[in-house]
Amino acid sequence: MTGTEPVAEAESGARPAARVEGRDAILEAAAAAFTERGYTATTIDDIADRLGATKGRVYHYYRSKADIFLDIHRYAMQRMLDVVTPLAQGGDPPEARIAAMVRAHAILLMTSFPFQRVSVQGLERHLAGRVTERQRAALDGVIRMRDAYEGLFVRVLEEGVAAGTFRPLVPRRAVKPILGSLNWLTVWYRPRPREEAAAQALIADEMVEFVVRGLRP
Amino acid sequence: MTGTEPVAEAESGARPAARVEGRDAILEAAAAAFTERGYTATTIDDIADRLGATKGRVYHYYRSKADIFLDIHRYAMQRMLDVVTPLAQGGDPPEARIAAMVRAHAILLMTSFPFQRVSVQGLERHLAGRVTERQRAALDGVIRMRDAYEGLFVRVLEEGVAAGTFRPLVPRRAVKPILGSLNWLTVWYRPRPREEAAAQALIADEMVEFVVRGLRP
Repeated sequence: MTGTEPVAEAESGARPAARVEGRDAILEAAAAAFTERGYTATTIDDIADRLGATKGRVYHYYRSKADIFLDIHRYAMQRMLDVVTPLAQGGDPPEARIAAMVRAHAILLMTSFPFQRVSVQGLERHLAGRVTERQRAALDGVIRMRDAYEGLFVRVLEEGVAAGTFRPLVPRRAVKPILGSLNWLTVWYRPRPREEAAAQALIADEMVEFVVRGLRP
Repeated sequence: MTGTEPVAEAESGARPAARVEGRDAILEAAAAAFTERGYTATTIDDIADRLGATKGRVYHYYRSKADIFLDIHRYAMQRMLDVVTPLAQGGDPPEARIAAMVRAHAILLMTSFPFQRVSVQGLERHLAGRVTERQRAALDGVIRMRDAYEGLFVRVLEEGVAAGTFRPLVPRRAVKPILGSLNWLTVWYRPRPREEAAAQALIADEMVEFVVRGLRP
């Protein structure tokens, strides 16, 4: 799931409407549209156009643009949790686990770009004060997922400090520059058509080196 | 210059209109408004209201909201360059210089919040495709300043690698997680009324530790 596949498929002309198989395709098309045009400027029509579908098809799944936006966040956070939770809770020493978590996070940001980009950047900014009660509950749910995700890193940091593997840092404070060094990817990184996997691996390598050394005593 | 002072002063009722002494007050009020309401939702009226001034007063200095937005970026980047350039070019060893640069960058982000927040986050996002030729030139100018700023860090990294003080990293790649760990502050950090300086110092300390150790051989 790269966020661009459905668009490419729709542009190939192969029964575009049939590509709208459900929510996933809508979310991917919407993430691409939000990234290109910004949330405010994007309309349901833009999202439908990217899918080669009608507006009605989009409304079959979602009541509003805000609902789509929220579901992108929910889905993207769930992907992160699904991938990183087993790495956080494995039996390896804390340094090896943090390294695996950092690598997985970085790779997921790059391979699910622009999906993760929309998720990582500014949830509250666009929706603050303009949400229904139901959307507010969804927003709170996403914020809880995000807190749980940060908690995965905090707990490995705590273990590493207790074991003396990491310097005597304050986990809740140290987790911020760790996630920052990763999430800032969504600001400067742009996927390139060629050599993508190799280039992504080099970026992830540097992130792992930087974070792991940054935690050592 | 914290971005909130003029608002507090205007709210004190002391001749609010007289507070509009020039561009600086407008930029600070606008940064606060953009942070609170988002760029799209903010109007020139909102900015004037915060200043206790008329819309005409704002238009005396700026032709449009986009011009104010661009000038916030220009001014905030110039502040960063003014503060960090002497630290980058001083005679200390590379590690001491990077430490001073990281600390100054972190403190400036926190003390000039929301001014720096607007600057650090999403310049292109709001203006892409909707700018006049003159605004395009201003935008290019800001992007050049940003590149120059990143270049300050890259050169100190190069020196440190050449001297063997830093591990054999690729400076243009390693600079990204460094600036990311710092700039992500603008996403999670919120100024608090009490104990601000002490709390900010602890955050900056952790950033310095993290970055400096992340670069060691």
